[in-house]
Amino acid sequence: MPITANNPERKSWLEVSSTSDFPIQNIPFGIFLTKDDIVTVGTRIGNYAIDLGALHQLGYFEGIDLTDDVFLQDALNEFISCGKKTWRLVRNRIADIFDAENADLRDNIKHRDVVIFKIEDVEMQLPVFVGDYTDFFSSKEHATNTGKMFRDPANALLPNWLHIPVGYHGRSSTIIPSGIPVHRPMGQTMPADGTAPVFGPSRLVDFELETAFITTDANLMGENIPVGEAEDYIFGMVLLNDWSARDIQKWEYVPLGPFLAKNFASSISPWIVTMDALEPFRCASPVQEPTPLPYLQQTGDYAFDIRLQVGIAPENADETIISNTNFKYMYWTMTQQLAHHTINGCRINSGDMMGSGTISGPTEDSLGSMLELTWGGKNPITLKDGSERKFINDGDTVIMRGYCQNENTRIGFGEVSSKLLPPIPTK
Amino acid sequence: MPITANNPERKSWLEVSSTSDFPIQNIPFGIFLTKDDIVTVGTRIGNYAIDLGALHQLGYFEGIDLTDDVFLQDALNEFISCGKKTWRLVRNRIADIFDAENADLRDNIKHRDVVIFKIEDVEMQLPVFVGDYTDFFSSKEHATNTGKMFRDPANALLPNWLHIPVGYHGRSSTIIPSGIPVHRPMGQTMPADGTAPVFGPSRLVDFELETAFITTDANLMGENIPVGEAEDYIFGMVLLNDWSARDIQKWEYVPLGPFLAKNFASSISPWIVTMDALEPFRCASPVQEPTPLPYLQQTGDYAFDIRLQVGIAPENADETIISNTNFKYMYWTMTQQLAHHTINGCRINSGDMMGSGTISGPTEDSLGSMLELTWGGKNPITLKDGSERKFINDGDTVIMRGYCQNENTRIGFGEVSSKLLPPIPTK
Repeated sequence: MPITANNPERKSWLEVSSTSDFPIQNIPFGIFLTKDDIVTVGTRIGNYAIDLGALHQLGYFEGIDLTDDVFLQDALNEFISCGKKTWRLVRNRIADIFDAENADLRDNIKHRDVVIFKIEDVEMQLPVFVGDYTDFFSSKEHATNTGKMFRDPANALLPNWLHIPVGYHGRSSTIIPSGIPVHRPMGQTMPADGTAPVFGPSRLVDFELETAFITTDANLMGENIPVGEAEDYIFGMVLLNDWSARDIQKWEYVPLGPFLAKNFASSISPWIVTMDALEPFRCASPVQEPTPLPYLQQTGDYAFDIRLQVGIAPENADETIISNTNFKYMYWTMTQQLAHHTINGCRINSGDMMGSGTISGPTEDSLGSMLELTWGGKNPITLKDGSERKFINDGDTVIMRGYCQNENTRIGFGEVSSKLLPPIPTK
Repeated sequence: MPITANNPERKSWLEVSSTSDFPIQNIPFGIFLTKDDIVTVGTRIGNYAIDLGALHQLGYFEGIDLTDDVFLQDALNEFISCGKKTWRLVRNRIADIFDAENADLRDNIKHRDVVIFKIEDVEMQLPVFVGDYTDFFSSKEHATNTGKMFRDPANALLPNWLHIPVGYHGRSSTIIPSGIPVHRPMGQTMPADGTAPVFGPSRLVDFELETAFITTDANLMGENIPVGEAEDYIFGMVLLNDWSARDIQKWEYVPLGPFLAKNFASSISPWIVTMDALEPFRCASPVQEPTPLPYLQQTGDYAFDIRLQVGIAPENADETIISNTNFKYMYWTMTQQLAHHTINGCRINSGDMMGSGTISGPTEDSLGSMLELTWGGKNPITLKDGSERKFINDGDTVIMRGYCQNENTRIGFGEVSSKLLPPIPTK
């Protein structure tokens, strides 16, 4: 089935600025709350949020095999469970409905009134109920940088890293959408020159610039997903700020990995951009040497050219962009991650989220964390307002943005933006 | 409110053998499926499963503030969300209904017919929908033993271990109830004398004897649960077999912890034994030296005297008991684990599951894994049928049992039993 929604020639009858992340070629999926307290599955074109529940009730998805309430949900899990064929049919249909040449909804004021909202009039929610959240560690540059800082500069990359898309389980209960503030975590740390740990607010709160992909039901327990089929089970992607407390992490992480250093908050952008929308931006990933084991081998292009940016906006001050990087630098691809995750028979459900790991590029200004940008605090960054940052201060808002751009089209994620607040006093 | 359900003098009008794990003083909670395909919340007395949905519809919980469908569920999460006061009211009421002196249900054949099932006529399900699963590492003996084998015998315990109830996130999607077989996982391992990893079935499949506790909604994001209040948020406990593939674990676990070595299956016993039922078996936990930081300090008894046992039954052969240990050996308590888990503001939901970590005692026959019992395979165990085991063979059933016993009462968990099957061929 062709992805007609990607037609770069198409224009919408809804106004879309040329720099919008959400032209009619994007058609992401999300969940929003209206001023009337209605929660619905929606999409976005330009600065308009579109109620897919209302569109479906009005008959605009006729002919597509959908349950009556598939869009009358507070999470996308049920729609995602419908599978790739249905996602594509729905996305193609939405493109048709909003095509400049199509008068059906365009000229029906009554219908438009219940379907279309100004983006500032809706409140974005978490797009999926995440049953399980896995975070990978798939940037060679990031793994090398942290290995140099935390372990052995001469042997920064651990022996398994070039053979395995290393990953670990994260916490689902603290995944939050863009806009929700995060409190600085309290915790236990070991002072550099100390003999006993101390308790207090983390002094080294950091962001990690990541993307994440959302899966559909993919396998029964005990079965694997071959790398060549893995893409069929990936619904789409979001931006992810994997908040991290470096001092807590350093003390707690051996031998079972990061725990409280990470599970206080993970912020995501609210619109899931489909893999179909990202299709025109497919590109090659780095050459893998040594060649991985056969279950991880793939030919073709499985990276995506997604431009990524991080900014810090101090309280009452302008934002400073502190990093520009790209998803295409990632050494391990999403399909390899999913194939690896299931090679032992681990079951994957609709709405599971898998983070890329911090995305760091090859240059000093393309690193995906303060840890790397300031090299553990040794080289502070100066912001536009003249203040310096080694890590994130209370009151700072961390903003991540991502988009793809070719000669015709820009497909973007919008942003994930979250403010760091002081800790809530311990009870 | 008194826990009248614990009255050791009480007898039930339902027959209960003197060695049953489920006298009228237990009253655990679970989910079962009847032959008529009805799924309901239930409890168990002796060898009878009791349909709490039916009891509620018949008015037996009158006066307790419960929604009509609280027991007409396929998971206990909603009931657990009702909180400790309601759990206790319901458990006390069930004890009254089945008290030998109470004729209401006893003498109502019509009601008995729809409420009471023989245990062999129902199929036990997973008792809760587990949103997030955390596994701790709280046995000093187990941490020391694995440290000696995997790392440095002279410094087996890592520096953080005596200060932190070390834990990590597990996978919720592969938690299964007793009785569901498990397939040997495929995976990537590094041969002892190898220079490159190989792919194939894990050769070192192991069990880990654990208990786990189930929480109720406990806090908002950003808030902590003080150690002194933590017990109010623990609904009850189950037995947990944290299946582990040692060869996969050894190769993958640095630096982010175990992943595919664990997430292929975690088996639990189907009846949640409440903390109220375990109350008479409260006892002291090991002295903690050094004294932990204030947020982890507690006075009083927070361990429980739960006798635990592991057996292996090869295909068509008798079971051999290979370990006898006790939950009271655990260095870190459940309340310390929950206080630590939330000290950074990590949100805890109803139905979250937290594993104890492998429970190993101080003697050679009280260890909680084959890894320790055979010391990494060096000292195989001989089973009753004359066969030897270093780890678990295909066709073996691993059976874990647990119970408390004092002069009056036995309160048990039943068992978690699961058979290891050969791997499903990789696609």
